[in-house]
Amino acid sequence: MSNPLSLSLGPRVRKSPFFEAARKAGLSAASVYNHMYMPTSYGDPAAEYDRLINGVAMWDVAVERQVALKGPDALALARYLTPRNLDGLTIGQGKYAPICNYEGALINDPVLLQVSDDEIWLSIADSDIKLWAGAIAGARGMDVRVFEPDVSPLAVQGPKSFDVVADLCGDWVRELRYFGFRAFDLGDIPVVVARSGWSKQGGFEFYLRDGSKGDALWQRVADAGKPYGIGPGTPNYVERVESGLISYGADTDDMSNPFEYGLGKFMDVDQPGDFAGKEALRAIRDAGVTRRFMGLVIEGAPFAGTNEAPWRLSDAKGGDAGYASASAYSPRAQSNIAVAMVSVAAMEAGAGVTVHADNGNLRAQVVPLPIV
Amino acid sequence: MSNPLSLSLGPRVRKSPFFEAARKAGLSAASVYNHMYMPTSYGDPAAEYDRLINGVAMWDVAVERQVALKGPDALALARYLTPRNLDGLTIGQGKYAPICNYEGALINDPVLLQVSDDEIWLSIADSDIKLWAGAIAGARGMDVRVFEPDVSPLAVQGPKSFDVVADLCGDWVRELRYFGFRAFDLGDIPVVVARSGWSKQGGFEFYLRDGSKGDALWQRVADAGKPYGIGPGTPNYVERVESGLISYGADTDDMSNPFEYGLGKFMDVDQPGDFAGKEALRAIRDAGVTRRFMGLVIEGAPFAGTNEAPWRLSDAKGGDAGYASASAYSPRAQSNIAVAMVSVAAMEAGAGVTVHADNGNLRAQVVPLPIV
Repeated sequence: MSNPLSLSLGPRVRKSPFFEAARKAGLSAASVYNHMYMPTSYGDPAAEYDRLINGVAMWDVAVERQVALKGPDALALARYLTPRNLDGLTIGQGKYAPICNYEGALINDPVLLQVSDDEIWLSIADSDIKLWAGAIAGARGMDVRVFEPDVSPLAVQGPKSFDVVADLCGDWVRELRYFGFRAFDLGDIPVVVARSGWSKQGGFEFYLRDGSKGDALWQRVADAGKPYGIGPGTPNYVERVESGLISYGADTDDMSNPFEYGLGKFMDVDQPGDFAGKEALRAIRDAGVTRRFMGLVIEGAPFAGTNEAPWRLSDAKGGDAGYASASAYSPRAQSNIAVAMVSVAAMEAGAGVTVHADNGNLRAQVVPLPIV
Repeated sequence: MSNPLSLSLGPRVRKSPFFEAARKAGLSAASVYNHMYMPTSYGDPAAEYDRLINGVAMWDVAVERQVALKGPDALALARYLTPRNLDGLTIGQGKYAPICNYEGALINDPVLLQVSDDEIWLSIADSDIKLWAGAIAGARGMDVRVFEPDVSPLAVQGPKSFDVVADLCGDWVRELRYFGFRAFDLGDIPVVVARSGWSKQGGFEFYLRDGSKGDALWQRVADAGKPYGIGPGTPNYVERVESGLISYGADTDDMSNPFEYGLGKFMDVDQPGDFAGKEALRAIRDAGVTRRFMGLVIEGAPFAGTNEAPWRLSDAKGGDAGYASASAYSPRAQSNIAVAMVSVAAMEAGAGVTVHADNGNLRAQVVPLPIV
């Protein structure tokens, strides 16, 4: 392979409020997500994985930007943006709320949080939902402002995160339901504490509500976590593949629809109200899907890294069977694994698939998610 | 400062069709733009600058993605998307067409190209205009498809670019007006040849229309450019500051409006047809602006690099005077320079501004753009 590339730092891409603290903690690699630097490694992948699975890790996930809908039509706009039925939405309980375009293709999969009577946040993946939501609000003449508030999540993830966050905030955090949240002041640091995070190891996110206090929040969490062996980490590539978490943009393409990802349970395409993509999604629901988001267990010597681009899949006859979007060696599965879009026809044939990896063709079994 | 960061390569961010060729040519640093790796350095900034100013350089600018509007309502949608008057638009002649949201804030500043009777491309800066345009088309029930076609620009820039591109395509390219373009087959490589590019040194862009032919196009251009000393380059940080080119996302914020950037001449806010932001932009036009995009000539020892975040400006009394978005040492001006949003009040006071740079406060004169 070629030499590694440096990441250019300049004024176009934004820095997280935790960026300087993360660099002091040894940040070694990053990417860009929602026009902001996204930490991806502190140089010791094995330790970072171990902290997440067995201990506790803190992640700068400020890239998980919020899109605020504020005003009399905030709820009406939110209802129009997602096929999920928002009946019964309450302040304090978030919902996973995929967003589709008018063709029924996924364009983001945020968590939706109602933070006050007239304000809703979408905690988004990597696409400009501020533009999508602002265009719809404007074109439909709705009385709602769409903007990005000064809110930046810091995640605390792993089995010991409950102790760390309870020490910081009180034992009430142990009672939060999944996606439950509450506004809280950590000393003079205003946050929303949410039971959430992009792992299946349990954890919380502090939504920092004052970008000038990034260093202070980082330090508070690092200090509280010290007795539990907290250390820095990032959304974990290996764990997310094991857990089958969807990475919008990596696992999806321009035609991806929510039914392919097993998100049918969140799609109320028969609800009375209108929403973007309703007609298309009803047609997709009726027709059924031709591919599904699945796991792969792949033969061969342990992968050293990850794929830099999707790997093509073929079926027993050499025909197209989809693509593997993200692959890794899993310490827990003790095997190479991947998440993949697999054609239903190939799965029905039942003979596994061939993965066209960078260094050759490998046989793989198709398995349900999560893999571990 | 901290250690440099590596750029993580993974499946979420897309590779340009020219990515492997660029790496073979010695690419050393990159960022991310429109969800795609954007080359930023081949490791020799002085040589890259010199090629652009005095010779010819080739740039992988596939990150300049196209948003296609295709169908019976393509032109109607384009007219609704930009405050620019599109009367007289013709196939073969592009127009700079800023896009604003319903509050009149800039959300992108693409070049618009009508490529056939029912298809228009927006050659965009770094924001998801596909979402903005798709939302408006859907919410207004327009008969037009919005999508990203398989089109990736490769720029050839610098005074000798005319000879290189004429050798490749014929002398007709010398007659193209600025933003003029024509479909062309370079052997079996389908391209659109446009007189355009993000520099003021003259040049062209090959809009590659088949992503599988990136290596082939790169090689054709490198071979044709050999007699003229062509070499690899990237959108040039120093030259763009000298020339005062707008970098959407770096120079703009959530409230930036086109009048602040001297784009009033492109804003036909009194045209009969409706467009997004019309009411807001008329009000902004009537009220006048409170800040302007200007040049700065800054005292002090030559800057070694660039600012990683905007630098605050203050006026003679210490009050807020705006921000410098991008700074550099200019070999041609033989001075430190910057582009900046400067408050009109500070300019009217006439005493210059103070730049709050990373290493201290520096006095600066406010000058018109371009600086060089």
